[in-house]
Amino acid sequence: MSSSIFETNSPHDEPSQLTAFSINTLDRRSEHRNEGELQEALKSDNTRYFAFAQGNALVKNGQTILTLSDIEPFEPDFENAAIIGWTHDGGARITVSIDLEEDQLKDDLQLLNPRTIYSDDLLEGDLLGQLAQAASINAWINSTMFCGKCGAKTMPKAGGYNRQCTSCERPHFPRTDPVVIMLIIDEEGDRCLMGRSPHFATQMYSTLAGFVEPGETIEDAVRRETLEESGIKVGRVRYHASQPWPMPHTLMIGCIAEALNTEINYDSEELEDCRWFSREEVAHRLQHSEGDDRLSPPKGAIAHRLLQDWLDWR
Amino acid sequence: MSSSIFETNSPHDEPSQLTAFSINTLDRRSEHRNEGELQEALKSDNTRYFAFAQGNALVKNGQTILTLSDIEPFEPDFENAAIIGWTHDGGARITVSIDLEEDQLKDDLQLLNPRTIYSDDLLEGDLLGQLAQAASINAWINSTMFCGKCGAKTMPKAGGYNRQCTSCERPHFPRTDPVVIMLIIDEEGDRCLMGRSPHFATQMYSTLAGFVEPGETIEDAVRRETLEESGIKVGRVRYHASQPWPMPHTLMIGCIAEALNTEINYDSEELEDCRWFSREEVAHRLQHSEGDDRLSPPKGAIAHRLLQDWLDWR
Repeated sequence: MSSSIFETNSPHDEPSQLTAFSINTLDRRSEHRNEGELQEALKSDNTRYFAFAQGNALVKNGQTILTLSDIEPFEPDFENAAIIGWTHDGGARITVSIDLEEDQLKDDLQLLNPRTIYSDDLLEGDLLGQLAQAASINAWINSTMFCGKCGAKTMPKAGGYNRQCTSCERPHFPRTDPVVIMLIIDEEGDRCLMGRSPHFATQMYSTLAGFVEPGETIEDAVRRETLEESGIKVGRVRYHASQPWPMPHTLMIGCIAEALNTEINYDSEELEDCRWFSREEVAHRLQHSEGDDRLSPPKGAIAHRLLQDWLDWR
Repeated sequence: MSSSIFETNSPHDEPSQLTAFSINTLDRRSEHRNEGELQEALKSDNTRYFAFAQGNALVKNGQTILTLSDIEPFEPDFENAAIIGWTHDGGARITVSIDLEEDQLKDDLQLLNPRTIYSDDLLEGDLLGQLAQAASINAWINSTMFCGKCGAKTMPKAGGYNRQCTSCERPHFPRTDPVVIMLIIDEEGDRCLMGRSPHFATQMYSTLAGFVEPGETIEDAVRRETLEESGIKVGRVRYHASQPWPMPHTLMIGCIAEALNTEINYDSEELEDCRWFSREEVAHRLQHSEGDDRLSPPKGAIAHRLLQDWLDWR
């Protein structure tokens, strides 16, 4: 009885695991992060750091997991650091802001946006997943230094993972923005819908996407965004995979959905073009998904996953 | 080919539609809300209002959709109002804060928390869904009056649906907090896992739940929260349904997941008890899901949906 619930005809048991940023082996111990743990970690030789300047990660010799001596020259803001978890051998991982400008960089140091680290394949697997968590929490801390309710300063709580207003005592928790991203297929299942934003690589098309709004189910968000962006009405919606997207702290919720009409009427304020693509066109485009002249989102992007899995559907 | 993707063996094609707060027929026109539309709506006789004092909805003769004259006595803060959408006949819906205390209430007026309106069955369907959106946006506006980055005041944008810092010009968008809620079933599929929080009705148990963290897939959030709260390791995870939950602006993501062990070691800081329930026990409990002595979450709650659909699985 149990097994029928989990049987899937999709090409992968858990396609989320095949997206970039999704693998993260840190033990988050989310209920047990506290100030004492953070202070202890700050004193331990086993602790390693992710350091960010204006949202860009400090990279040393190609690595983002750094020692105290790596980051100490750049005035790390330990008062607003956060403990993000522990490795299997008990070493803590801390995310912290540093004060560093591009022109202070030496040969073996770089400041790189998480998006660049991902798209240039500089890290993979667990290293990329830990970076995503560290970058998201760092971005959230920097955007929560003051209380949105009363404007007073906030102070760290829970080992830096939460904050609290120093005046009205309102608690502040990390923010994660759910976004739906959807592969829309026509009623015959032969074609899928993609659009291109003006900021895309010049030949690239991708699946439509948009923020889930307050008071909306995942399925309704898929239907609303698709209708608003393309004029296509959507019937059935199937969840397929999710992906953490640390620019700055998004949860991509990937769905496959069924078009009820075919005539496109796209929103020209959002999109430069929007059209149907055959399976053959998609297969060709997925083979050209790297570099500046790519035709599709790169491997690791959940849009790539949706497209590839549609082609490979059992 | 298309059809196999959307075939489901679940008891409902789209169980999300069967959850409370999920039906909302307003046309959100999310890309086209602006100051002009808001000003026009504020002048129109066709516009109706949702009004909130400290997060509680103003209810007049059992209704939450009010006219200008209904709310005018209570100093509505139109400067920080937001247009949430339009009805099919073009009437705008606006959410706005009012200044009203309990002791000012007259016979036909009440101030009610959205949770009470839901649990007491005062509204249903579309009326409940519109209220959810209005309450969530109102709560978000009240918690975004100041910029979290620099502490300066924010000002409304996009017809009140977005805000912007008056000093650093940082944009602020509505917040939606994704939460996973999961029915964990044992390997035989005969029993499911439920726990009880100290604040539950005295006999009630429900499915486990927790916030998705930054840098985490939906499936990993299910595994982490279940392990942390109950000591149960989780294998396969299947998305089942979602539900908007306007206390204050949550997206509940309901999953069914498979336990890999049976020995429970629950977190006594979070839970008062956690145990396995047979199908017979669950069926009995679902029949007693109303009132203060209820045994299970009420109809409309996504936890109720997960439990009922597990029993009814094809």
